[in-house]
Amino acid sequence: MSRKALDYDQINENVKKAQYAVRGELYLRASELQKEGKKIIFTNVGNPHALGQKPLTFPRQAPFLLDDPNVGLVFPADAIAKAKMYLSYTAGGLGAYSDSRGLPGIRKENAIIIGDSDPELIYLTDGASKGVMQMLQTIIRGNGDGILVPVPQYPLYSAAISLFGGALVPYYLEETANWGLDINNLRQSVRAMVIINPGNPTGQCLSVDNLQQILRFCHQENLVLLGDEVYQQNVYQDERPFISSRKVLLDMGPPISKEVQLISFHTVSKGFLGECGQRGGYFEMTNIPPQTVDEIYKVASISLSPNVPGQIFMGVMVSPPKPGDISYDRFLRESKGILESLRKRAHMMTDGFNSCKNVVCNFTEGAMYSFPQIKLPPKAIAAAKSAGKVPDVFYCLKLLEATGISTGFPPEDDHFAGRGGHACNHGEFQEVQ
Amino acid sequence: MSRKALDYDQINENVKKAQYAVRGELYLRASELQKEGKKIIFTNVGNPHALGQKPLTFPRQAPFLLDDPNVGLVFPADAIAKAKMYLSYTAGGLGAYSDSRGLPGIRKENAIIIGDSDPELIYLTDGASKGVMQMLQTIIRGNGDGILVPVPQYPLYSAAISLFGGALVPYYLEETANWGLDINNLRQSVRAMVIINPGNPTGQCLSVDNLQQILRFCHQENLVLLGDEVYQQNVYQDERPFISSRKVLLDMGPPISKEVQLISFHTVSKGFLGECGQRGGYFEMTNIPPQTVDEIYKVASISLSPNVPGQIFMGVMVSPPKPGDISYDRFLRESKGILESLRKRAHMMTDGFNSCKNVVCNFTEGAMYSFPQIKLPPKAIAAAKSAGKVPDVFYCLKLLEATGISTGFPPEDDHFAGRGGHACNHGEFQEVQ
Repeated sequence: MSRKALDYDQINENVKKAQYAVRGELYLRASELQKEGKKIIFTNVGNPHALGQKPLTFPRQAPFLLDDPNVGLVFPADAIAKAKMYLSYTAGGLGAYSDSRGLPGIRKENAIIIGDSDPELIYLTDGASKGVMQMLQTIIRGNGDGILVPVPQYPLYSAAISLFGGALVPYYLEETANWGLDINNLRQSVRAMVIINPGNPTGQCLSVDNLQQILRFCHQENLVLLGDEVYQQNVYQDERPFISSRKVLLDMGPPISKEVQLISFHTVSKGFLGECGQRGGYFEMTNIPPQTVDEIYKVASISLSPNVPGQIFMGVMVSPPKPGDISYDRFLRESKGILESLRKRAHMMTDGFNSCKNVVCNFTEGAMYSFPQIKLPPKAIAAAKSAGKVPDVFYCLKLLEATGISTGFPPEDDHFAGRGGHACNHGEFQEVQ
Repeated sequence: MSRKALDYDQINENVKKAQYAVRGELYLRASELQKEGKKIIFTNVGNPHALGQKPLTFPRQAPFLLDDPNVGLVFPADAIAKAKMYLSYTAGGLGAYSDSRGLPGIRKENAIIIGDSDPELIYLTDGASKGVMQMLQTIIRGNGDGILVPVPQYPLYSAAISLFGGALVPYYLEETANWGLDINNLRQSVRAMVIINPGNPTGQCLSVDNLQQILRFCHQENLVLLGDEVYQQNVYQDERPFISSRKVLLDMGPPISKEVQLISFHTVSKGFLGECGQRGGYFEMTNIPPQTVDEIYKVASISLSPNVPGQIFMGVMVSPPKPGDISYDRFLRESKGILESLRKRAHMMTDGFNSCKNVVCNFTEGAMYSFPQIKLPPKAIAAAKSAGKVPDVFYCLKLLEATGISTGFPPEDDHFAGRGGHACNHGEFQEVQ
């Protein structure tokens, strides 16, 4: 049977070689005994709050709030209850390292919301980027290991792939046939395929058909599918709602549903939360061998734990207030308001672009970017050449000087440079609202 | 002139190869224009709060607090003032990505406290471990690149070094002469030296003399010095207070003070804060070429920014309440109380160990661990052998089964196995206090 990139014998040897005694035989045995109900005193890592050290009052201020008889006057009862629930998940509160995979209670919440998921296969991370980087590092063994990445892409992928010594193999969503072509050139070394759905920066939402094609393709080519789904709440049309790769995969049934290795990524930084600064995210592993999961756990534990406040934001994201809760109406009003404003701006952006001469822009179906195609006149292209710049960079620099608008990443792939594509964040319209 | 590991032409080629368009020519030009006072609208990354999106009320609750006329009844005035100051450092509040190097305002605070420092050379990180890993990845180009690490060590170093494909070269602080020996074996490939001061797990505090020897050694051997100083507040004797490698380096004067490349690491997870779960830390770069700093900035920016609450904890750590502030007395009482309790427990631990038969333990001068030497009787060693385990692991497993105490990492280095050394966190005594 052919090997997949995340089969144990296929992953980066450096990942296996990495020893981490803090999670060695002793720690694992201690965890077993604890599961069996024995009281274990962990002394293997300095984690003062977990061992009862009281946090200083000054930087926190808040600790006393929940015990304050007047807390009910300041915060709604359901928020207080939720805060107490999350604190009950962590022995040492927000100031203690959690499990390197994140707090079990919150991983359980995620599993319940996703449905049909195993909390042991959901790892919380400091934002989705950190999870993407860990998985790419696990997959890429060295030079020549190729990763299929959509063009245009979110630069995290090109940057992380070269950081880990891999090779980026571009593909075009709208030119499905090309995949085979790209693959034929490098079949031996291509190990994984990245999809960004909804697309960043293109904003497209993939249809079930398209996702099935992609999954069949990954199955046939033995590729791990890395599903970047961080914009899943940012959808601005109703014809093609967001559907997760995981749901489509499981609905396809065996052998594909049991064989395609899938990693799904999510974050608290987008959607209606937009809590970028909290750095909260997770990835879920589907059809990944347990030995490989152990290695991923080991490597995650080298940096001890994701930040705990970010984990709790993830918890609140996946289990928001329910109908009947005191905070429900306000939560609904605020979250709807944000999504409706984004949807409105998606239309403003694309209509605005399409009203310009020599500019064509597909409707921004999702994510946070519009991606216009700008036909540059020969003179502009000539001017760019004489300035020693590719036309789109030249255009974007002129736009910056003239308007102060700093556009998104001009695609660096040759196939694209001529199109002068660049991303514009809807956010810029916040200013004029 | 001989090359140093962090000279631009000496670092990991994969670090240079990594392109990150979000910080490409456009972004850099936009930042220039912004410095020149031009109003720039950044649309290159989705950062909603930075563009004015209001955070949801439910997960935060707090946003309104600072505007509440009664906030003064709930929080002391100096805490309110400090909170407002930190919020003024970040356009989008705690929910917006910061600069990839951390909030400039907090990096300035750090620079002022450290003294004689440049905020541009201080990067905030998600805990110290993330910074250590980034620097090791930058230094290690591939197999054979050696890093000198003290034995016994904190397992972060062995784990990260093999993750990045390097080679750990052990050295013994108490056997200074050995360094040269180790080096002579691998002079070509040894690139950096790690010191952990105060020691983890040994607890020793390095003297100025010893630090000068180490710095001279690094100068002569062209080694980058990685100074892990996360336990600098955890010192339990007064004869040898903590002194930073950076201070000793600068006091040594040229050429050494201008030539030795030094990275210093610190965290909010230890000391009297112990805010492990917040994941806040920083590293400072001394004598690192600007081109290399640019590469380190680029790689830091791939994961966007460290978590902002952790950055603010770092700010509060380096600039706590001052005498005369409303919160000063309480802050002093609490922080002193924690350090005195740790000091008391350091004595309890080492006295306790030394009162045991066949156990010798140096006084724990600092950090959070006692590191006893346990002389195992021949029968125990025989029992371990017949169980197919090294004696110290065997001992620690028996201790675990009998008492539920999960000790720290038994050193895996052969030189040490015979000594049966293992770490015990003072924290375990929290239980009986």
